Amino acid sequence: MDKLIRVDLTHLTVRTEAVPEAWLGLGGRALTSAIVAAEVPPTCHPLGPNNKLVFAPGLLSGTSASNSGRLSAGAKSPLTGGIKESNVGGTAAQMFAKLGIKALIIEGIPEKDTWYGLHISREGVAIREDGTLQGLGNFAVLEALQARQARKLGVICIGPSGEYKLSGANISVKDPSGKLRSHGRGGLGAVMGSKRIKYLTIDDEGAQGLQMADPEAFKAASKVFTKALMEHPVSGQGLPTYGTNVLVNILNEAGGLPTRNFTYGQFDGHEQICGETMHETIVARGGKPRHGCHAGCVIQCSQVYNDAQGQYLTSGFEYETIWGLGANCCIKDLDDIATADNLMDDLGLDSIETAVAFGVAMEAGLLAWGDGKEVLRILREEIGKGTPLGRIIGSGAGSVGRAYGLTRVPVVKNQAIPAYDPRSVKGIGITYATTPMGADHTAGYTIATNILNVGGQVDPLKKDGQVELSRNLQIATAAVDSTGMCIFIAFPALDIPECLPALIDMINARFGTRLTGEDVTGLGKAVLKTERAFNLAAGLTPAHDRLPEFFRTDPVAPHQAVWDFTDEEVDAFWAF
Amino acid sequence: MDKLIRVDLTHLTVRTEAVPEAWLGLGGRALTSAIVAAEVPPTCHPLGPNNKLVFAPGLLSGTSASNSGRLSAGAKSPLTGGIKESNVGGTAAQMFAKLGIKALIIEGIPEKDTWYGLHISREGVAIREDGTLQGLGNFAVLEALQARQARKLGVICIGPSGEYKLSGANISVKDPSGKLRSHGRGGLGAVMGSKRIKYLTIDDEGAQGLQMADPEAFKAASKVFTKALMEHPVSGQGLPTYGTNVLVNILNEAGGLPTRNFTYGQFDGHEQICGETMHETIVARGGKPRHGCHAGCVIQCSQVYNDAQGQYLTSGFEYETIWGLGANCCIKDLDDIATADNLMDDLGLDSIETAVAFGVAMEAGLLAWGDGKEVLRILREEIGKGTPLGRIIGSGAGSVGRAYGLTRVPVVKNQAIPAYDPRSVKGIGITYATTPMGADHTAGYTIATNILNVGGQVDPLKKDGQVELSRNLQIATAAVDSTGMCIFIAFPALDIPECLPALIDMINARFGTRLTGEDVTGLGKAVLKTERAFNLAAGLTPAHDRLPEFFRTDPVAPHQAVWDFTDEEVDAFWAF
Repeated sequence: MDKLIRVDLTHLTVRTEAVPEAWLGLGGRALTSAIVAAEVPPTCHPLGPNNKLVFAPGLLSGTSASNSGRLSAGAKSPLTGGIKESNVGGTAAQMFAKLGIKALIIEGIPEKDTWYGLHISREGVAIREDGTLQGLGNFAVLEALQARQARKLGVICIGPSGEYKLSGANISVKDPSGKLRSHGRGGLGAVMGSKRIKYLTIDDEGAQGLQMADPEAFKAASKVFTKALMEHPVSGQGLPTYGTNVLVNILNEAGGLPTRNFTYGQFDGHEQICGETMHETIVARGGKPRHGCHAGCVIQCSQVYNDAQGQYLTSGFEYETIWGLGANCCIKDLDDIATADNLMDDLGLDSIETAVAFGVAMEAGLLAWGDGKEVLRILREEIGKGTPLGRIIGSGAGSVGRAYGLTRVPVVKNQAIPAYDPRSVKGIGITYATTPMGADHTAGYTIATNILNVGGQVDPLKKDGQVELSRNLQIATAAVDSTGMCIFIAFPALDIPECLPALIDMINARFGTRLTGEDVTGLGKAVLKTERAFNLAAGLTPAHDRLPEFFRTDPVAPHQAVWDFTDEEVDAFWAF
Repeated sequence: MDKLIRVDLTHLTVRTEAVPEAWLGLGGRALTSAIVAAEVPPTCHPLGPNNKLVFAPGLLSGTSASNSGRLSAGAKSPLTGGIKESNVGGTAAQMFAKLGIKALIIEGIPEKDTWYGLHISREGVAIREDGTLQGLGNFAVLEALQARQARKLGVICIGPSGEYKLSGANISVKDPSGKLRSHGRGGLGAVMGSKRIKYLTIDDEGAQGLQMADPEAFKAASKVFTKALMEHPVSGQGLPTYGTNVLVNILNEAGGLPTRNFTYGQFDGHEQICGETMHETIVARGGKPRHGCHAGCVIQCSQVYNDAQGQYLTSGFEYETIWGLGANCCIKDLDDIATADNLMDDLGLDSIETAVAFGVAMEAGLLAWGDGKEVLRILREEIGKGTPLGRIIGSGAGSVGRAYGLTRVPVVKNQAIPAYDPRSVKGIGITYATTPMGADHTAGYTIATNILNVGGQVDPLKKDGQVELSRNLQIATAAVDSTGMCIFIAFPALDIPECLPALIDMINARFGTRLTGEDVTGLGKAVLKTERAFNLAAGLTPAHDRLPEFFRTDPVAPHQAVWDFTDEEVDAFWAF
C-alpha cells in the first residue's frame, strides 16, 4: 500500500501513515496542494515552523508511461505568500513511486543550529545531522553524496541560495545524467533551507515497486499515448530538435518577446540566442542536441551545451532562461547565458526569477544592459556570497523593484513574469494574472493556441476568447500536473483525439478506476479551487489577480499593444 | 473662501479649485484620506503617476487654539500598500491655513529627469525646475532655501532617502526653531521623491488669514481647553519635563519595553537611556529640556539635546526612536542614539521604521547588538549613499526580514511595530493589528489606559476590554487627527470632563457649525471606514489585520506573555 511519510524536524521524528481516503485518488500537484491546504495555516510565516514542504510523485510516476516522471513540491511560498506547486523531472519521482511513497511531508524546524540530510529507502526515512555540505553548490553536493555510496542515488538538494533563504531559491533534483533539474519557482528552496535540510538522498533498492491493476490495458494505452507524442509536430519535431529555445524566433516574430525589461516586444539580438543558433552551436561543439530530463521521456527537449573548447557548460538550457538573460537583459552572447544558467543551477536559483531580477537591476542602473560578464560576477561574488546586493537580486524581481523604487517591475503576486509579453499575447496575461501560483506560463500555456495554433487559434492581440482559453488550459494543466506528466504532452493532447483518452486509460489501468474525461476536468477544477481558497485565506484577493500597472499605460512595440482587460473580465476567469 | 490647489506634475500645471461640498467639514486626516480614497486607484503603483500626495492642515490649524498646528500628509503608502496619513508639527500647517489652502494635491510624475520645487504663496503655487539641491540632506536644504529669501519660509522637503524612494523615507517639515519635524511613517518621502519634488517652500506674507465665525466663543472655549492641557499630570507635567522619553522606565517596569528585536520585555540598559537620565544630561549640557514642535504648543514635550561639548546634537528626540535604537538594538549610549536621530532627520528616514530595521539587521548578524557606532556608519555610508545594504535597511524592517529570511520581523502590513510590546500591553496590539495605517501606536494609543491609567484602567496583560479600548481610541484619534490637534490632547480629553466639549466648541466657533460629541465620533468612524475601504480595494484583507506569528509562539519575559487573541476577536474591532 502506498503511504505518507511525515518528517517532523522540531522533534526529529519520522512517522509513516496510511493515505487518507480523500487523498487516495490524488498525486503530484493535486496531492501537494491538498496537503498544504489542509495542514498549513494560510497566514503562517512561510519560513517558520508552521509551513510544510511536501513532495509527491504524480499518479503515473514510476510506471512505464512516457514522460510521467515528474515530481511535485508544494508549500506556502515565501515569494508569493500563497500556495505553491512546482514540478520537476529527474530521477526522484520514479524512486518515490517505487518505494510506495505517495507524499513526503516535511514539517517543523530543528531547534539546533545545524544542517540535516534525509535518507529515504525501503526502510523509511532517516534524519541525519550533517553540516559537512553546508555552503556547497549543488554540483558539489551531488558529487559528495554519490561518492558516499556505490548505488545510484536519487538526490534532492539546495544550493547556497536556499541556505540563505532567498525567495528566488529553487530545489534541485538529480537527473539521469547526474546533472540537475529544478523545482524552480516560488522560492521553495528557501522553505527547505528554513527547515535546515540541505539534501534528501533516495535509494530505491529492494523497493516494493508499483502495483498495476490491469497491465495489459496499461500497455495498450501507453502505446497509443506515446505514438501521439511522437507524431505531433511540436512534441515530435520542434522540441526535440531545438529544445524550448525554438521559441525565441517565434516570439520575436510575434512581437511578444519581452525585451529590455519588458520595454519592447522584439530583440535585435534574437539571431544570436535563438534555438536554431543554439542547435548549430551544440552540434558543432560536440554537445547533445537531444536529452531527456527523466527516464521515459520521448520528447527529449533538453540538451547538453558545450563551450568553444567542447567542455560541458550547461544542460536543461531552457527558452525562458535564454530569453530572460538574452532579450530581457539584452545579452547577446549565448555562452555567457549558458555559463549563467550553470551558475544559477549550482547556486540553486530560479533562472526565470533571477533573470527577470537582473533586468530590473539593469533598469535601476546597477549594471549595464547586455553586460553578461557582470551578471556572472554578481552571481558568483554577490548572490553566491550572500552580500546585500546578492540578497536583493536573489530575492527576485519584486525585491529589486522595491529596493530601487521602480515601477516597471514585471511580477504578479511578486513572482516574475516569464518570457511572453502579456500585451501582445493576451491569453498568457490572463494566466499570469489568475493562476494561484503567481506569474507562471506553465500554469495555462496559452502560447500553444495563441502562437503555435495548437488546439485551435485564438488571435493573441485580441481579447476575445482569452479568458476561456486560459481557464480551459489551467484546468487541464492542474490535472496533468497531478499525473506526473510533463506539460508538453498538452500539445498532442490538444490536437490528437486519441491522446487524452489514452492518458485516462493509463490512470484507470494503473489504479483499477473508471475515470472519465469529465472526472479529470473535475480534478483540475478542484485543484484550482483548493489553491485559490488557500490564497484567499492567506490574504490574497482579486486585487492580486492583476498585471502590473505599466502594462496598461506603456504600449509595447511593434504592435503598440497594451493590456486592456477590465478587472471584471479578468475576474470572470473564476466563474466555474 | 478656502480652496484646494492641484499641482499636476505630468503637465506641469497648477489649478485652484473650490472645495467640494462633501469635503467642506473635513480637515487634516479626514480630508487627506477622503481625497486619496476618492482619487487614487487603490491598486495603482504607489510610486507611479496615479498615486497622489496630499497635504492638509487640520480644521483648527492657523487659529490660536493650543496645540492645533499639525499638518496631515496622505497617499497610498509604498510601505504598506494601503492608505496612509501621517501628521506633523512645524510651521507649515498654520501657513497653509492662513493662505486658505484646505488641501494641496500633488499628482502625476514629470516627464523630465530632473528635480522640482514648489513655491506656495498668496499668489498660488509656482512649479520651479530646480536640481541644485539634489542629494543634499534636509538640514542643508533648509539652509539653502532660507538663504534665498529674507522672510521666514515654511519648508517641506525630502532628504536623500526620499530621492532614493526608500520605503522608510519620511517628509520633513521645518519647525519654529529652524529644525525638522517629520511626516514619519509609511514612506511618504518616497512618494514625494517619485514625483521628483525635492521641496515645497511656503510664504504666508499677505495671507488672507482665517475667518472666525464667533471669535468670543472661540476665545472662551480655547481658554478652557488650554487649562485642561496644563492641568493634566501627563500633558502638564510628565511630558514637559521628560518628553515622551518618560516612557522608557514606565514601559520597562511594565515589561512592555521591546528589547533585542522583541525578544524580551525589559532592557538592562534602561537607566542609561531613560527620560530622567536624558533630562539631567540636557540640563547639565545647557540644552533645552522643553521645546515646542509648533507655535501654540503648551505641552512642549520636545527638547534640544546637546553633546558633551554643549553643541547641538538633536531635537525632537522621541521615546520611540530612543527605544528603537536603545532597548531594541541594545544600544546604551544616549549620545550615539542622539547622533543617529539627527542623521535620520538629515537623511529623511522614519526613525521608528529604521530603528526597528536595525534590530532585524542585528538579528540577521549584519552588525553586533548594541553597536551604535556601526549604526552611525551604516546611516552615513550605506543608507546615505544608497548602497545595496543601505537600500535593504532603508526600506524598513520587513525588507531586512525578507532579504535575510528571518521570521522574527515585527511588522504589521509591512510597517514596523513601535515601542510597546503587544504581548504584554495587549490593547496596543489590537491597534497595531487593525489600524488601516499598518503598525502605528499613535492610531489608538491604548498605552494611556493600559499603562498610564488615563481614561480608566484596562489590565494590559488581559484580553478583556482591549478591543473596545482600541476601537474607542482609534475613532477618537481619527477625529483628533482631523482637527490639527496634537494627539497628546487625548490625555486631558480622556480625564477632564470640560476638555473635549471645549475642543468641539472651538470647531463650532471657527466654522459656525453646531457639531455635537456624537458628530465628532461619527467623523472618526467615517474616517476609519473610508481608509479601510481603500485598503480592502487595494488588496488588504482581514488576514493583514494580524500580528506576526512569533508573538503567538514566543512568550516575552518577564510576564511570559503571548499574543492570544483569536482572529475573530481581532476582527470584531470592525463591528461599528
